[in-house]
Amino acid sequence: MENFDNYQWLSGINGPDDVKAIPQEFLPELAAEIRKYLAYRVRENGGHLSSNLGVVELTVAIHRVFDSPTDHVIFDVGHQSYVHKLLTGRKERFDTLRMPGGLSGFTKMTESVHDAFGAGHSSTAISAAIGMATADAMDGRENYTVAVVGDGALTGGLAYEGLNNCRHHLRLVIIINENEMSISPNTGGLSRHLSRIRNSRGYISTKKFTSRTLRRVPLLGRPIYAFLRFVKKQLKSLLYKENVFEQLGLRYVGPMDGNNTDALVAALSDAKAYPGSTVLHVKTQKGAGDAEAEANPDLYHGVAPREKEQNAPTFSEHFGSALCHMAKEDDSLVAITAAMSYGTGLEGFRMVHGDRFFDVGIAEGHAVTFAAGLAAGGKHPVVALYSTFLQRAYDNVLHDAALQKLPLILAVDRAGFNVGDGPTHYGVYDVSLLSAIDGACIFAPVTGEGIAASLRAAKERGGLCAIRYPNATEDERIRAAFYPIDAVIGRPRVRVFDAEKEVAATVVTHGRITAEALKAADRLSRQGVGVRVLLCEYLAPYAELAAEVAPLLSDGPVVFYEEEVRSGGFGENLAAALAGDPEFLAKPHAIVAAQSGFAVANAGRSVWQAAGVDSDALVGAVLDLVKKKQ
Amino acid sequence: MENFDNYQWLSGINGPDDVKAIPQEFLPELAAEIRKYLAYRVRENGGHLSSNLGVVELTVAIHRVFDSPTDHVIFDVGHQSYVHKLLTGRKERFDTLRMPGGLSGFTKMTESVHDAFGAGHSSTAISAAIGMATADAMDGRENYTVAVVGDGALTGGLAYEGLNNCRHHLRLVIIINENEMSISPNTGGLSRHLSRIRNSRGYISTKKFTSRTLRRVPLLGRPIYAFLRFVKKQLKSLLYKENVFEQLGLRYVGPMDGNNTDALVAALSDAKAYPGSTVLHVKTQKGAGDAEAEANPDLYHGVAPREKEQNAPTFSEHFGSALCHMAKEDDSLVAITAAMSYGTGLEGFRMVHGDRFFDVGIAEGHAVTFAAGLAAGGKHPVVALYSTFLQRAYDNVLHDAALQKLPLILAVDRAGFNVGDGPTHYGVYDVSLLSAIDGACIFAPVTGEGIAASLRAAKERGGLCAIRYPNATEDERIRAAFYPIDAVIGRPRVRVFDAEKEVAATVVTHGRITAEALKAADRLSRQGVGVRVLLCEYLAPYAELAAEVAPLLSDGPVVFYEEEVRSGGFGENLAAALAGDPEFLAKPHAIVAAQSGFAVANAGRSVWQAAGVDSDALVGAVLDLVKKKQ
Repeated sequence: MENFDNYQWLSGINGPDDVKAIPQEFLPELAAEIRKYLAYRVRENGGHLSSNLGVVELTVAIHRVFDSPTDHVIFDVGHQSYVHKLLTGRKERFDTLRMPGGLSGFTKMTESVHDAFGAGHSSTAISAAIGMATADAMDGRENYTVAVVGDGALTGGLAYEGLNNCRHHLRLVIIINENEMSISPNTGGLSRHLSRIRNSRGYISTKKFTSRTLRRVPLLGRPIYAFLRFVKKQLKSLLYKENVFEQLGLRYVGPMDGNNTDALVAALSDAKAYPGSTVLHVKTQKGAGDAEAEANPDLYHGVAPREKEQNAPTFSEHFGSALCHMAKEDDSLVAITAAMSYGTGLEGFRMVHGDRFFDVGIAEGHAVTFAAGLAAGGKHPVVALYSTFLQRAYDNVLHDAALQKLPLILAVDRAGFNVGDGPTHYGVYDVSLLSAIDGACIFAPVTGEGIAASLRAAKERGGLCAIRYPNATEDERIRAAFYPIDAVIGRPRVRVFDAEKEVAATVVTHGRITAEALKAADRLSRQGVGVRVLLCEYLAPYAELAAEVAPLLSDGPVVFYEEEVRSGGFGENLAAALAGDPEFLAKPHAIVAAQSGFAVANAGRSVWQAAGVDSDALVGAVLDLVKKKQ
Repeated sequence: MENFDNYQWLSGINGPDDVKAIPQEFLPELAAEIRKYLAYRVRENGGHLSSNLGVVELTVAIHRVFDSPTDHVIFDVGHQSYVHKLLTGRKERFDTLRMPGGLSGFTKMTESVHDAFGAGHSSTAISAAIGMATADAMDGRENYTVAVVGDGALTGGLAYEGLNNCRHHLRLVIIINENEMSISPNTGGLSRHLSRIRNSRGYISTKKFTSRTLRRVPLLGRPIYAFLRFVKKQLKSLLYKENVFEQLGLRYVGPMDGNNTDALVAALSDAKAYPGSTVLHVKTQKGAGDAEAEANPDLYHGVAPREKEQNAPTFSEHFGSALCHMAKEDDSLVAITAAMSYGTGLEGFRMVHGDRFFDVGIAEGHAVTFAAGLAAGGKHPVVALYSTFLQRAYDNVLHDAALQKLPLILAVDRAGFNVGDGPTHYGVYDVSLLSAIDGACIFAPVTGEGIAASLRAAKERGGLCAIRYPNATEDERIRAAFYPIDAVIGRPRVRVFDAEKEVAATVVTHGRITAEALKAADRLSRQGVGVRVLLCEYLAPYAELAAEVAPLLSDGPVVFYEEEVRSGGFGENLAAALAGDPEFLAKPHAIVAAQSGFAVANAGRSVWQAAGVDSDALVGAVLDLVKKKQ
């Protein structure tokens, strides 16, 4: 348990009431303590640093003015809720941040009554807040709903759908936190609009000009005064409307300094007193108060835990350089991402092929439909997204690309369980989503060369092709087992490893979890059960894969082994494709796949264990079938 | 083939060049002819009438000014592309509109080079158009991309994501067609904003006031003149910015009369001459020129073909009245839809329980996340969507509702193949999408009472529950076989029908296609193969269903029979859930499911045949297994 003895103010805070008990003039000291603590703890555990440093004063002010949990405080994405967690009774457990069984790195309803809505994905807070505030209004409750939304989230269409549906009469405060960054710097018209609202002192300087000019004008009669008063009023009311929030019918206040506690307390109190919805636009500095993070807010958006830093290139980096390389020879290739240019390894591509690189903001749907338009115009687009965010563009993939028979390569990053981020970020549905689409092709490379080979194969094949890989580096065990030094990578195919000469069962698998299959094969081998492991470098088309897998199956039982959800996944589809073969049907077979996409790790149990897909589960499944056969 | 001899101008039009050949003063006559023809043809074939009558002049003007297919013309949704089809070489086939093998009711890239992008779902055109225009710009082509987007489509977040990413330098004309209707009347801030742009003469009257006032002001010296010029310029430039398109950095022109050909030709020519992107805002009258359609544009949005009109209540109507009834006793129930209040049968609910009814516009994602917020606030939301549009809210269902363990009922309308609308509107993925979600519950009622029973069961169960049904009325054959007059409906369960006393095989099925299963059972019975048909009134949780189905299976082979895509669907999940039972494993079994979600009907083949799920396919599958067993 964390020791807060050295923190004069923070040590005494065990809930929102304690924030209200501190004399207001000492709140900046509290903020400084929080900042110091976060800078230390997040660098230890990994997580989001810059964004949390930016909202220290804002969060303190919210708990000063509003009464959580009676009032609902919602953080969009939730990655900037660390300060909120520290202030709402969770500081003693904060050293468990993002650790198995520890505090979530996002808001989580089961973690605390103060987390009014769970999140992890962007742009949901406005919709959810309107829902909660509407429910309160319907039932005659007089509590408030406060949503904290970063400007990056406003690049997402869902946020706009929410704003467009916001009702004026709700006790709702939407705080737009402008920090000019989502994960990468924001792009798009609205982002420019926000900074224009902030930077343009248009109406103020006009007023100054007006009075200055007036002073120079001779013979000012009363009618002129009257006229000028009218003009000023018109100017002000018109200029007041000159922003997108007002145009959507919302009361807008701001922009204001989001790192000034006094100003924030005043503005929030004003919003609370106003009988209706308010959009409060604050400007905060990402990484505020931490020199390193201030200088590199993008780098410190997500911080890797200290012990996990490594040097081998990640699959994302392999993807980025392979695409960069291919694009040199092939003008048709273009790359699109949705505020994930660092995360997906596309920064190099952006620098070398800037004219063919498009970061559309947190707008996965547009990323894919825009790519489909590029494809209709003769380009071969590559859209790089995290698996979990591909879920937000499913209809775009299906309706705008696949059904239109357009060429589209999806680089599906962060495939599989992403432990630190938790269930909101698991990449365990993409295989099912894509497998349901007629003609889709899915590659699952496990090496750097494999990623390049998959890209080449996808380019050649055309149509809808996905290349999926985890947030990881190459696994030494997989390389040793399947890729002898002189191995030719070539086209993605099925590779064979026999743990023993005498093979009693076959495990058919793909991707990162192949390392667990090898581990299981080792153990089974020691128990006298020889196992063959088939590593599939591609999944769909399953008919092709089945034709390649069938002759490689040993005589014994077959276990399909995967990290993703079972329904509509690799095992079910491959087994179905093999079912035409009586030889296969004669073999006992089973599928080991995630039993739930919501499985969570705790201190004593990995997420793979929790989901029933660790090597123990595989060993058990193989032994079951082998015994049954005997 | 249609006879156009009575149409003086239309008869001679076989492509865009012919539109350009008509002297401009006769274009209104052409428009009148098109209108007359559409009013007749659409009432015969069914389809979208009002929206197409509204865009007659606009479409004529586009083909007058731009050169399709060199210039790309994209229609959002595509339901308003009938005039475009008539003008681009498809008028002789127009009598086949929406018929198997005939013209699509939407734009379709394989149908004509003039359909630059395929559609069916809303709000995709801006993203796709930016993509196509970007590809052209990258390759140095000087052609134009024209996107026609209804104001309804602007309620969708994807349209906003597109606008937010629109680049100024593209040869792109985005035509916003304001007709104040999507499927139902538009709601939301942007819709109000659009009509405010149109209605407010704010800056004009200010200018009038300015000059009027000035004339009355005595002693106007030169400094005053200078000052006033400045003020006017400021006012104009500021007011010019007072709309959302300009704020996103786009050039805005309008609003203008979208039913005036001369004005449209002039404005489009101006947009073409402008070296950059333009948003052109036109106001058209939905149903223009057709008294009946003008008076009831909502009713004539989608017209049922003459011969198909029927009186029995549809499942949508059953759903609407069941919900209405339940809501009377249960204050917690609230209903949400996304511009589908007529289509989903919720109009009655809206009238009776208006305070608990929310139409959010074409914003499926927000509909679900807003509902999740309502649920977090203690309500039990029911979101009614068409199956195909649920695809657009998948992550909202998964991340915002299911993962948060909030109660949510999805009323999934238009389930299964929707023949007239074609593959963009098939409801064949929802079962797979929902089945992958841990804990989801899926009901599949086939009677009006079954819908009410499913709603009650869903309400009682909590969590994520979907109730799916087709765009149809009750099937008499299904009722006769499974629901004797004294049948108690009660909780959704599995019902049994034996075609013969001696049963040789079991067909396990659900939903509308059960009627085909009964047909197949009849035929098989005549061939001496007795068949048991199990009708599942619910699908997931599959473990529960498996426990209920297992003891009902006959000794012979088992065929799982469904209308939806196979991957991750009913058959695969139920078979997997049954696989723990050695008795089941001993029985030969097979799945008959849609082989592709993109299957299309043609003149000689129904979509069910094309997808391999008609009764012939089922008969074949049963006979195969029966023979194998012998």
